[in-house]
This record gives sequence, structure tokens and C-alpha cells, in this order.
Amino acid sequence: MPARAIAVAPDTRAGMYEAMCRAVIDGGGTLADITVAEGLVWSDPAHPGAFPGLVAEARKLEWIQLPYAGIEPFADHLDERWRWTCGKGVYAPAVAETVLALMLAGQKHLHGYSRASGWSRPVGRILGGSRVTILGGGGITDHLLPLLAPFGCDVTVVRRSSEPFEGANRTVTTSRLHEVLPRTDVLVLALALTAETTGIIAAPELAALPDHAWLVNVARGGHVVTDDLVTALTNDAIGGAALDVTDPEPLPDGHPLWSAPNCLITPHIANTPEMGLALLEPFVAENVRRFCSGEDLLAPVDVALGY
Amino acid sequence: MPARAIAVAPDTRAGMYEAMCRAVIDGGGTLADITVAEGLVWSDPAHPGAFPGLVAEARKLEWIQLPYAGIEPFADHLDERWRWTCGKGVYAPAVAETVLALMLAGQKHLHGYSRASGWSRPVGRILGGSRVTILGGGGITDHLLPLLAPFGCDVTVVRRSSEPFEGANRTVTTSRLHEVLPRTDVLVLALALTAETTGIIAAPELAALPDHAWLVNVARGGHVVTDDLVTALTNDAIGGAALDVTDPEPLPDGHPLWSAPNCLITPHIANTPEMGLALLEPFVAENVRRFCSGEDLLAPVDVALGY
Repeated sequence: MPARAIAVAPDTRAGMYEAMCRAVIDGGGTLADITVAEGLVWSDPAHPGAFPGLVAEARKLEWIQLPYAGIEPFADHLDERWRWTCGKGVYAPAVAETVLALMLAGQKHLHGYSRASGWSRPVGRILGGSRVTILGGGGITDHLLPLLAPFGCDVTVVRRSSEPFEGANRTVTTSRLHEVLPRTDVLVLALALTAETTGIIAAPELAALPDHAWLVNVARGGHVVTDDLVTALTNDAIGGAALDVTDPEPLPDGHPLWSAPNCLITPHIANTPEMGLALLEPFVAENVRRFCSGEDLLAPVDVALGY
Repeated sequence: MPARAIAVAPDTRAGMYEAMCRAVIDGGGTLADITVAEGLVWSDPAHPGAFPGLVAEARKLEWIQLPYAGIEPFADHLDERWRWTCGKGVYAPAVAETVLALMLAGQKHLHGYSRASGWSRPVGRILGGSRVTILGGGGITDHLLPLLAPFGCDVTVVRRSSEPFEGANRTVTTSRLHEVLPRTDVLVLALALTAETTGIIAAPELAALPDHAWLVNVARGGHVVTDDLVTALTNDAIGGAALDVTDPEPLPDGHPLWSAPNCLITPHIANTPEMGLALLEPFVAENVRRFCSGEDLLAPVDVALGY
């Protein structure tokens, strides 16, 4: 298997640059300058603008590996001259872990106890056996269900199609969301943000939930009508909310969600840079190995579709 | 199968009294006054002192069901005239859930984010694949390992005997604790408090842990030398601590642990009254059923040994 020449660029983010260089070597590639590289591993998510100037010097480039799960930052640069791959699915295990962390934190009142400076009354609920409704049937749900399996929860997946989702007790279409909400102890948002799903959780949906139900959002802030959520939390209409994403995001200082009771906000940590790198490095190494040996690459981007 | 007469007492704690009455009926028993009862379900953990006066009136009593996992409160009342059962093992599933909640909270920095009133930098680690060391090979560990299984952690159980613990990658005796500590990302205390295990985690053990390691204690506060832990937390010698039990307990206001960085304290919530009742009710129902049908009872107490 020939070691092919792979460039890693830009080097503006040291930790990521080094990790991607290691991945190239671990995958059996040879680090190379962009002028002679056959592959390029993009190593700074924050600087897509540096791309055109860099690839203008490339003479042998065939393949570009992007670090993103969603490649919107590179939408303008996609070009069918090259094969593109991205990080689709790479981060889902980390996000699923964060979902379970937030679900358990809500049940065990960890947000409240974290804020306490004195001993207080023991409260908390058991997650095991409870009714969990997950909106979205993608990679996060794929990785969440095995983590939930030993808890023996009653899991309903709500998605566009009613095709059964492995590991769920039932799968229903989004049109039946309101049937499911009253029988939900924990509602997890793990769906893509589209025109149809923007604001999918608003006052009527929050009112349909039992008053002990928790909302966990690791998808996008725009799925939830924030003002309606603030009202529901303030009125104890639901048990609480754990939000890894918000609208607006970042959530500004002084926003009422910061002081809403039973609200735990994490700043989009489901996939932190340090967690992401640990997952991305072996993934990129595997794609380098595949590139060197002529196998199909993981997470290909369809340039025409743009994802 | 004859419905046997079961008393539920005292009625000083309404929620528990009602739950235990339901359990008697669900188990096929008949609620009865203590004077004619063949069985007694004790329904207020906080009032063992009411026991002698009550049983003085009993004429047909054979069996007493206590609500505790550890029956120290009834130690003075144990009497071989009757068969005793307790709640051994009943609460372990709830405690195991809390262990995982605290492990994940540490990895995802939930204590820090809970205290924040503004957006901050995303930090966090992946629990999946990390090295977990569990002190104790009892019911909590039994129930924790299945919850951990899908995370693919490398689990070491440290216990008195080196008999392999199912689901652990390895089991070692307590004498080898110091070999294991440097290779530990999360250290879980789930062992019984005895003379040998009091203060088992002190300055030398904390120093042997990697500086990112988290300590999770759901056993007893006395396992940890609190002052040494405060020093380790203050010096960032370990990653953090999540404590459901403390020494002293309750932890007094103003204690340095309340303000120690990276310390999450929950007030002995691993088994809250509301969680415990949900687990105890079906357990007592099952024991009532067994009592009525003459089968072996669950969680028998050895009166001579006192547990």
C-alpha cells in the first residue's frame, strides 16, 4: 500500500494541527506540502476563508477531508474537481453521552445542588423505567439508544417516517407528536433544524407535557420558542430544561433563561474541541488509510447536494 | 394461596404508609390491625422507637419487613421470636444511577455550568473508553456495571477478594489499590464503611491519581479524609469530586468543600425518599406474596449477626 502525500492545513490552531498530522501518519500517509499533496486535511474549523488561497497552489490534489459534521462553512468552496469527506457521524457518540448526562442531571437535580452552598432536602427521580421521547432519528439517537438500553426506559422515537428505529419501543411520525407528549417524562431534541422543525417546541407542546417532564435540547436552539420555554419554566409547567443549545446563541448575559428555575444551560459542549479531536483523530487516520489503499472513504460529501 | 393478615405501621409518614398499604394489597395480603396481624410492614424509617409499644400488642406476629438497606436503627429491637426481612439491595439500582449521573456531571463540567450566569468556553471529556476504578464489589457495583457497559470503559473493581467481578475488565484486592490509582480517570467509592476502609482515600491516594481524575463517593463520607480532599481540590491535584456523602454529614454551612473548585455535593440523594418508595413498594409486595404462599422471603435478616 503506497504512502500517499497528504497536506494538513492551516496550522492556525496548534492542537488540532498536531492531531491531524498524527492522524495522517497513523493512517499510513506522508505529510506533504500542499503543492505536491494528493490529499488535504483541513485543520482549523474557524478559518474556511483561508481555503481558496491555499488550494490555488495545489497541483495534485484529489481529496479534501473537512473536520465538520455539518459543512455549511465550506458551502461556497465545494468543487467537483475534488472528492470531499467530512466528519458526519464522528461526534455523535460524544453528543449522545452529553444527552444522557443532561437527562440524569435533571432527574437528580444536579443543577440545583451545584448552586447550593448548604445541605438541603434530598430530591430526585429515577430515570430507569421512565418514558423517554426522542425527536429525531439520526446519528445522535443511534448512539443514545444503546446508552439508554440498560435503564429499561420506554422509548418513543418521533421522526419524519414511522420506519421502526432499532432499540426504540415505538417509532411515530412527527404528526403524532401531540399524542406522545402527555406520556413523556423526558423529551430529547436530537433532530435537524429545518423550516419544518423550527419552533417545533412552543407553548402548546410544553403545555402538553406532564408538569414533571424535562426537556433536553442538544440539537439547535431554534427548535424551541425560547420565550415560551421561559414562561413554562417560570410557571413550573414542566419539570425543567437542560439546554446545550439556545436561541439566541450564545445566550446573552442577563437573559431570563439564566435565572429561570430548573434550567441547566451548557454552552454547546455536546462536542467540545477536546472531545471532538479525540474522536476526529482516529476517524481521519482511518480515512487516510482508506485513501492510501484505494478503498471507499467514510463520510463522503455530495457536492451537488451540498452535504 | 391464603391472604394473610398484614399490619402496616406506624402511619406517621403518610406517603410511605399509603405505599406500604398498597404493597400489602398488591402482594395478596389483607390489611390488619397489629393485634391479629401475622406480618408487619414497618412504614416510617425515622421512628424505630415506636416499635416495642406496637409489637407488645401483637399476638400472631411471625414476620417483620423493615424498610432499610442497613438495619442499624432496629439493632436493639431484633428478636428471634420473629422472622425479619429488610430492604437490602432494593435501593442499589437508584444509587447506581446516581453514580453514573455524578460521573457524567464531572466529565461534562455540569457543576461549573450550573453555577454560570453567562456563556463560557466549552469544556468536557468523554466518559466512553475511560478508565474507571470502583472500590467495592457489592450491590451498587452490580447495578453500575450494566449501566457503564455501553460506554466501553476499562473497569477495575477493587475489593477484599480478587474473585472476578462480572462485567469488570479486572478485579484486584485492596492491597493493590496504589497500583491502580495512577491509571484511573474516574474513581468510584461504593464499598461498606468498616474500620479498614475508614479514610481509605487520603492524601497519598489522592496524590496517586492523575490530575484530571474525578472522585465519586456514594458510599460513606468516612471513606475520604475530608481535609486531604479539600487540599487536593484547592491545588487542582485531581480533576474534581462529586460527593453524595460527606464527613461530617450533613456538611455544615461554610465548610470549605462548599466553595472548593470542581466539587459537586449532593445531599445523600442517591436514594431519595421518593425514589426509594418507588423501589420499595414492588419489593414489599413481592415479599408479601412470598409470605402468603410460604416461599422464601427476600432480604432476610440474620438476627444473630445483626444484618
